[in-house]
Amino acid sequence: VTSQRIRLSPDTRREQLLELGVRLLATRPLEQLSIDLLAEEAGISRGLLYHYFGNKQDFHEAVVRRATEELFALTEPVDDPDPFVRLAASLDSYVAYVETNRQGYLSLVQAAYAGNEAMREIYDNARAALTDRIFEYAEPTVLEAFGIEDSPGLRLLVRGWSAMVEHVVLAWVEDPRDIGRQPLIDSLSQALFHIMATAPKS
Amino acid sequence: VTSQRIRLSPDTRREQLLELGVRLLATRPLEQLSIDLLAEEAGISRGLLYHYFGNKQDFHEAVVRRATEELFALTEPVDDPDPFVRLAASLDSYVAYVETNRQGYLSLVQAAYAGNEAMREIYDNARAALTDRIFEYAEPTVLEAFGIEDSPGLRLLVRGWSAMVEHVVLAWVEDPRDIGRQPLIDSLSQALFHIMATAPKS
Repeated sequence: VTSQRIRLSPDTRREQLLELGVRLLATRPLEQLSIDLLAEEAGISRGLLYHYFGNKQDFHEAVVRRATEELFALTEPVDDPDPFVRLAASLDSYVAYVETNRQGYLSLVQAAYAGNEAMREIYDNARAALTDRIFEYAEPTVLEAFGIEDSPGLRLLVRGWSAMVEHVVLAWVEDPRDIGRQPLIDSLSQALFHIMATAPKS
Repeated sequence: VTSQRIRLSPDTRREQLLELGVRLLATRPLEQLSIDLLAEEAGISRGLLYHYFGNKQDFHEAVVRRATEELFALTEPVDDPDPFVRLAASLDSYVAYVETNRQGYLSLVQAAYAGNEAMREIYDNARAALTDRIFEYAEPTVLEAFGIEDSPGLRLLVRGWSAMVEHVVLAWVEDPRDIGRQPLIDSLSQALFHIMATAPKS
């Protein structure tokens, strides 16, 4: 009989190492995140690390996946019946995430674009989950509230909007002098609702 | 006295090699574009290539710069007094460019995100030039036509829109089944005009 403790312990250890990986990613690009560095910071052997993460590529993918899960958890919409309020709250927490974690987020985005097929898929799935959540969270859903029909064109344009948000917020966090935080969030929210209203119907 | 012919010849040769580099980029990512491959395809020595492009990094930057110049030239707005017509024409030629050159464009975008500071700057400048042109081309300008005041917030949001266009068009070219080409272009145009109207004023 496998006891709960024995079954959980390696998972917890692995989880701690991933957390450390995400923390290290916050101050350097992914390609500088070596197994050696992680072993040194964690105070355990390289051999044990390879036991948890088959190879460096697997380790990098696990770290990127963990970072996207963290972003996903930190931007969970509030439970409010008004879709505008839900969206504004999610955008606000997303901006706060990039504000407090700019280098880590930049490392994540760059790793996703630069990476192999698997890495890009992890990031694309995460971004799709983030945007799809906008549609599915709470009742009435955004689409119900606005009487908009779901379609592949709508989903494509909304994912395009999330690429816009990524670009705009990263640039703004780098140099926020000229633009207020709330006007920025308001403009991005309004852009989404307009994009949904005029997405290709076919 | 340096004759016109002697002065131009090396430039022309360099230009031909860059064209070849861009053509090779159309079927493989930048990291597979080696000096060896270029020398083999061009039928000249590695030494001569190093004479034209100091090192591999310089060569890669020159190829990426050349590819962005090509994109810029191919999407020049038409000379029409209606800003809508100008934008639709530019978007149409941009979509056509990505349609006929998907892998090359993907290589370009990935190289930009994955690359060093210099590479990202080349790409960012190119994208800024592409979007700034929307404002400056022909009279009345877009802003004049719509009575919109220029501002840093406006420019930031419009560059965000261009990131959205990049994402949407690349995804659509990969799988165009569900969405018509013209409805896609119309939605992207409308999105820009709405984004301009609601950009942060501060």
